[in-house]
Amino acid sequence: MNLLLVRQLLQQALIEDIGTRDLTTELLFEPGDMLSGMLLAKKEGRIAGLSVAEEVFRLLDPQIRFAGQAADGTDVKAGERIATVTGRARAILSGERIALNFLQRMSGIATATRDVCRSVADLPVRIADTRKTMPGLRLFDKHAVAVGGGINHRFGLYDAVMIKDNHIAASGSIRAAAAKVKRGAGHLVKIEVEAETLDQVKEAVEAGVDVILLDNMSPEMMREAVQIVGGRAVTEASGGITPETVREYAVTGVDVISLGWLTHSVKALDISLDLT
Amino acid sequence: MNLLLVRQLLQQALIEDIGTRDLTTELLFEPGDMLSGMLLAKKEGRIAGLSVAEEVFRLLDPQIRFAGQAADGTDVKAGERIATVTGRARAILSGERIALNFLQRMSGIATATRDVCRSVADLPVRIADTRKTMPGLRLFDKHAVAVGGGINHRFGLYDAVMIKDNHIAASGSIRAAAAKVKRGAGHLVKIEVEAETLDQVKEAVEAGVDVILLDNMSPEMMREAVQIVGGRAVTEASGGITPETVREYAVTGVDVISLGWLTHSVKALDISLDLT
Amino acid sequence: MNLLLVRQLLQQALIEDIGTRDLTTELLFEPGDMLSGMLLAKKEGRIAGLSVAEEVFRLLDPQIRFAGQAADGTDVKAGERIATVTGRARAILSGERIALNFLQRMSGIATATRDVCRSVADLPVRIADTRKTMPGLRLFDKHAVAVGGGINHRFGLYDAVMIKDNHIAASGSIRAAAAKVKRGAGHLVKIEVEAETLDQVKEAVEAGVDVILLDNMSPEMMREAVQIVGGRAVTEASGGITPETVREYAVTGVDVISLGWLTHSVKALDISLDLT
Amino acid sequence: MNLLLVRQLLQQALIEDIGTRDLTTELLFEPGDMLSGMLLAKKEGRIAGLSVAEEVFRLLDPQIRFAGQAADGTDVKAGERIATVTGRARAILSGERIALNFLQRMSGIATATRDVCRSVADLPVRIADTRKTMPGLRLFDKHAVAVGGGINHRFGLYDAVMIKDNHIAASGSIRAAAAKVKRGAGHLVKIEVEAETLDQVKEAVEAGVDVILLDNMSPEMMREAVQIVGGRAVTEASGGITPETVREYAVTGVDVISLGWLTHSVKALDISLDLT
Amino acid sequence: MNLLLVRQLLQQALIEDIGTRDLTTELLFEPGDMLSGMLLAKKEGRIAGLSVAEEVFRLLDPQIRFAGQAADGTDVKAGERIATVTGRARAILSGERIALNFLQRMSGIATATRDVCRSVADLPVRIADTRKTMPGLRLFDKHAVAVGGGINHRFGLYDAVMIKDNHIAASGSIRAAAAKVKRGAGHLVKIEVEAETLDQVKEAVEAGVDVILLDNMSPEMMREAVQIVGGRAVTEASGGITPETVREYAVTGVDVISLGWLTHSVKALDISLDLT
Amino acid sequence: MNLLLVRQLLQQALIEDIGTRDLTTELLFEPGDMLSGMLLAKKEGRIAGLSVAEEVFRLLDPQIRFAGQAADGTDVKAGERIATVTGRARAILSGERIALNFLQRMSGIATATRDVCRSVADLPVRIADTRKTMPGLRLFDKHAVAVGGGINHRFGLYDAVMIKDNHIAASGSIRAAAAKVKRGAGHLVKIEVEAETLDQVKEAVEAGVDVILLDNMSPEMMREAVQIVGGRAVTEASGGITPETVREYAVTGVDVISLGWLTHSVKALDISLDLT
Repeated sequence: MNLLLVRQLLQQALIEDIGTRDLTTELLFEPGDMLSGMLLAKKEGRIAGLSVAEEVFRLLDPQIRFAGQAADGTDVKAGERIATVTGRARAILSGERIALNFLQRMSGIATATRDVCRSVADLPVRIADTRKTMPGLRLFDKHAVAVGGGINHRFGLYDAVMIKDNHIAASGSIRAAAAKVKRGAGHLVKIEVEAETLDQVKEAVEAGVDVILLDNMSPEMMREAVQIVGGRAVTEASGGITPETVREYAVTGVDVISLGWLTHSVKALDISLDLT
Repeated sequence: MNLLLVRQLLQQALIEDIGTRDLTTELLFEPGDMLSGMLLAKKEGRIAGLSVAEEVFRLLDPQIRFAGQAADGTDVKAGERIATVTGRARAILSGERIALNFLQRMSGIATATRDVCRSVADLPVRIADTRKTMPGLRLFDKHAVAVGGGINHRFGLYDAVMIKDNHIAASGSIRAAAAKVKRGAGHLVKIEVEAETLDQVKEAVEAGVDVILLDNMSPEMMREAVQIVGGRAVTEASGGITPETVREYAVTGVDVISLGWLTHSVKALDISLDLT
Repeated sequence: MNLLLVRQLLQQALIEDIGTRDLTTELLFEPGDMLSGMLLAKKEGRIAGLSVAEEVFRLLDPQIRFAGQAADGTDVKAGERIATVTGRARAILSGERIALNFLQRMSGIATATRDVCRSVADLPVRIADTRKTMPGLRLFDKHAVAVGGGINHRFGLYDAVMIKDNHIAASGSIRAAAAKVKRGAGHLVKIEVEAETLDQVKEAVEAGVDVILLDNMSPEMMREAVQIVGGRAVTEASGGITPETVREYAVTGVDVISLGWLTHSVKALDISLDLT
Repeated sequence: MNLLLVRQLLQQALIEDIGTRDLTTELLFEPGDMLSGMLLAKKEGRIAGLSVAEEVFRLLDPQIRFAGQAADGTDVKAGERIATVTGRARAILSGERIALNFLQRMSGIATATRDVCRSVADLPVRIADTRKTMPGLRLFDKHAVAVGGGINHRFGLYDAVMIKDNHIAASGSIRAAAAKVKRGAGHLVKIEVEAETLDQVKEAVEAGVDVILLDNMSPEMMREAVQIVGGRAVTEASGGITPETVREYAVTGVDVISLGWLTHSVKALDISLDLT
Repeated sequence: MNLLLVRQLLQQALIEDIGTRDLTTELLFEPGDMLSGMLLAKKEGRIAGLSVAEEVFRLLDPQIRFAGQAADGTDVKAGERIATVTGRARAILSGERIALNFLQRMSGIATATRDVCRSVADLPVRIADTRKTMPGLRLFDKHAVAVGGGINHRFGLYDAVMIKDNHIAASGSIRAAAAKVKRGAGHLVKIEVEAETLDQVKEAVEAGVDVILLDNMSPEMMREAVQIVGGRAVTEASGGITPETVREYAVTGVDVISLGWLTHSVKALDISLDLT
Repeated sequence: MNLLLVRQLLQQALIEDIGTRDLTTELLFEPGDMLSGMLLAKKEGRIAGLSVAEEVFRLLDPQIRFAGQAADGTDVKAGERIATVTGRARAILSGERIALNFLQRMSGIATATRDVCRSVADLPVRIADTRKTMPGLRLFDKHAVAVGGGINHRFGLYDAVMIKDNHIAASGSIRAAAAKVKRGAGHLVKIEVEAETLDQVKEAVEAGVDVILLDNMSPEMMREAVQIVGGRAVTEASGGITPETVREYAVTGVDVISLGWLTHSVKALDISLDLT
């Protein structure tokens, strides 16, 4: 993650939460008061976002001491210590909620991704995210997916081409759309086409695109699509796939399965900051 | 919601997603191409964020025509039309994902809040949110809770006092902390104290605070706490309460129940944009 | 004060003043040249904003040495030393004006507030500010009032409800307006109503609001209003009150007197930076 | 004034005041409700900032109708109507305070400047402001001075050279400092030197600078200084000059008198928005 | 180009140039004064950035009338009219320089790119840009290259992988670096490797990367490298190539030639705004 | 240069280039990996922007060690070492391109300016820049001109008056325009008038302006103009002057020659970062 961008987003989040001042803490603590605390996992899961939590506290107190016991990517048990933090009481109390909001969401995403990856670990398939992320926080969501063992789909509309049905309609055919894109796009841009029928899959293969998104197909149909493609493009399964159905799709032989579910319906991992 | 702030946040979200340019759409659509579409609910739920979705499209095309069929707060059935949108194809295609990301999350929160409120509708209790929201997007999360029938807890550390265990420890006692806060805080600030034991509840009542947060108590203990307070302060139940357990707490007589669950573990409502 | 916000505002102020470069100082001083100076009060008054002045210099030279002799809230005599500062000449000369502009205004507000508070110190009344502050600098103005011994009214339109005549007109009556607000506002929001007549005072009391603003009343009428309220709400006197008239209002028994005068017509405290 | 900059600063001021939302107005007014109002002068004075007030309302409601009856620079009597405004109730109520804060301060500055100018109108002297303005709002303060009939001193450290005692000390002499500046500064930069003694005045004249600031001199000494200069440079009187003492300095023959008082100790002009 | 981003950058450029106010224009023109003008090419070239110039004027006067006679991509002769603009005199005069600065640079880049493309038009090679662009203005530079007939290399460090010598050294070998990247990068990311020797070219082909950058090779060596690759990857020639040497490289059979020269040493196209 | 502004602009440039993350470097280097490198001049020239390059690296790694061997203003030979840098590999690799983009452009401008200055070093004329700079980066361009031995023309529309033909037309005559400006502008503002004919030159002299821009005149006509002025104003030659023609103008006796060429058609100085 670009630290300059991370810092900018965290600063914005802290200003949203603290506003003009932390009314309670400024009234009850002196600037020089110190405090220590432990970040504890209250449920089993995979940790992601530790450096983000640290940076939250550091923005409020540059002298903070933050020691991570479980680096990003570590699987922790319920009750396990994740990190200890020592510094100015005002910084720790004013930053606690934002640090936890990031850490809990990111760890929630990492844990869910890990579980999905594990469920298909014996198969040659990769799990990917989508653009269904929290606006303004995609950087964090995508990092958490990577920590969970998934790969990142494109980061936005700018770093890869994805030709969808409306784009196809505007050009007349997949072939025409792909040709137009190939003329205009640079040599470092991958081209993906969304296919909903087997005929579209064939057309996409012939158009010579890099990736074919098999959209909302049944596992049976997808198996057939994968055979049609026959390794001439990367295949990606997508469309309402959940942890419950992911294996049915994985066994069809697709190369990648992408799940909006990983980031649009996150269950935060329960983590607390116990102050001492 | 402060429209100036909303616009600023949406602009930031769009720049995150579109980046330098929507590579696919700029290559395949001309600036003058037009498109229409319908926002459709794919699951039953309560709509929230319609004006946010509209503003997303308007930022990309000031001449957009957006007609809402289901205003914020409307309960829609699966398949029901929420709104129609007509305008420049580039604006609609480039804005689609962000509009949906906001609308789906906000409607997901509103729906969950509505369901929790309904489950205790026969009781004189109110449902509130917390600060466990997406960093930078609290405004939207809190608006969605209100649309769902809940009330908003404080918006940040700046608009109400909340005395927690560490604050109490720093001052020696609830009494001392409350007195200190009362001297320093303005006459338009409410003071809430977190109590974990019945003794603390008594102390808080005597300290004359406005609201007492009954933290992580069993329903039985909470019932007792409510009786101790006897109407001398507003009582708020909090701490890991979920839709499954909310009714057990509601029957104890507390005035307010706050659930971090409403915003930290959101299930997005499934909404699609069908282009025509 | 939220230090992240303070820093952001100071940076903006420095960029306004220095612009592309401090033409004189860059031409006449080398980057390594050092300078020392003393902040001196040239008139008697109460100091506020010392940490703000320090932060101004620190933004321009992170190694600055700044030693405060008179902390915020200290009453100084004419000629008394407030602080000493040592660091890069360029930082001190380029930051001098902005540091003084903040310190002089904040100390001016603190001094005026202190004087008003003193003039009613024998009475059980509190002095409050208003929203008549310098746009963008409310944080500093309100901090200065607190340093002067006053309390802060709401910080903006977002942290408390204030029902004014137009709001009342829109709902039909104080009662209707208050009821509507109580349904919609959270349990941590205080409700104030502006009353211009004794009938409105009665209606406000019956509506069960937290604070009643007695607007532009004569001292006699205000005394009557306070008796009507009889402790069932906090009473606040407001409307063109000045240091000259504040005592007449204080003796009526009101709980709070708010003066726009404290911040809309500030007389800066004369403070100089004497360089050595 | 650069409208792009003005808009940016006003947006910031509105976000400071409205924050997340105007709690009262959003609860009591529907988005479609309309309102009208009149800006009225409650005291005699000169109006400045009308377009700023208009822009405040326009940011909140692009369809606002704002009709100025007294343009910037108009002298109004107590009770005179300044402008009428009609538009969305939410925009008018949420913007009222910020519009007035700007208009009152700017009109206060314009009025004070006008009064000072009038008091020396028979003399060939001009009245100027300083950099003792509200941080971040200098643009508005300086515009108000111009509306009041004064001229603007440099806008910041970037648009003219001002050699002060510390700068002189660093170079050894006024002559050396002036020579160094002349070599480095562009041909569109004016050079001013601060002189505290008559010897310094002589040295400054010989150094060939454009303007000589006669700092903290008595009227007698200043008269002598002006004679020494003999038209070979512009002379500027400065240092604690107030409306009470300005005439004593004006009669010495100086070309310009600058008063920090114009902007550092502003008395806001009393203006109200009467809604109908 | 993302219009939201474009507008943000133009606003920043205008604030840089106009600063607090256009001193001359505000003193000499009334807000209501109108002006017309023509954008004229004073040298032969290809136009790029017309919509950018239009947007500059629109930001200063939303009612501006701007009619382009030569759309982006048009080749114009010396003296040919590019566009006409009519609107507020203040907007046109204050925006003129910035509009021209963008238009001249972008047209200069488009013209140079066109000329390079033409010089190799009979060969199956494409001309690409690099990241040697003006900081903060890459969007405009890259758009101009596309208008000139070139393609865009990656936009930044975020949208494609480029393994350089230091990256190789850190992993031990091209093979190891490529394998590591393939594991971590998503399926929509292309991988390019920089090769300086023919052995590295072979290694890169075997590592299965998408693009091989043939760095600083002589035309002879490059021809050999292209034969080694044999179509198993895209080949890109780079390293100090200029319009004078581009054809020597083009005939080697490389797929793409990238020139930092296109954007790091731009000769602005001479364009004037003739006001009437 | 105002360091606060510099930092803000560099941060923006780095975020433009790195975006969400440096994909290659984050995959191949660990956070703790270290690297060293040397900045080397690959062509003869004058160095400008060294502190800018240093600040780029410092923003990405506050512990960076950067030792300049050739300060701004030093003339280096091809192959000469400019600076060494040691720090985190990720910071150096991610910052390399931006550091070089600034350093190469600024050194290119300084070198070109130096060469122009040298070509007229025996004459009493000064070389100045214009506003034909890269939008948003004027600060850097103007600093580079100063390092090259030139002087800076006005920085923007805000720090000096420049009366052009359209301004004259609006007021009727140079005399009228100059008079109007003198009434409105402060005493620290210089006034320049653009003259295209000898009659205009005479009129400008009589109007008493500070500087007269002799626009697009032949050397012969310019010589005549200089004689007309006779030292009563500063004379500035401008209009399409290049290094080839500058001497012809210099010998006419003008005080200043300004060249847009210095910054609108920059040839970057070839500088590399050789990592070790």
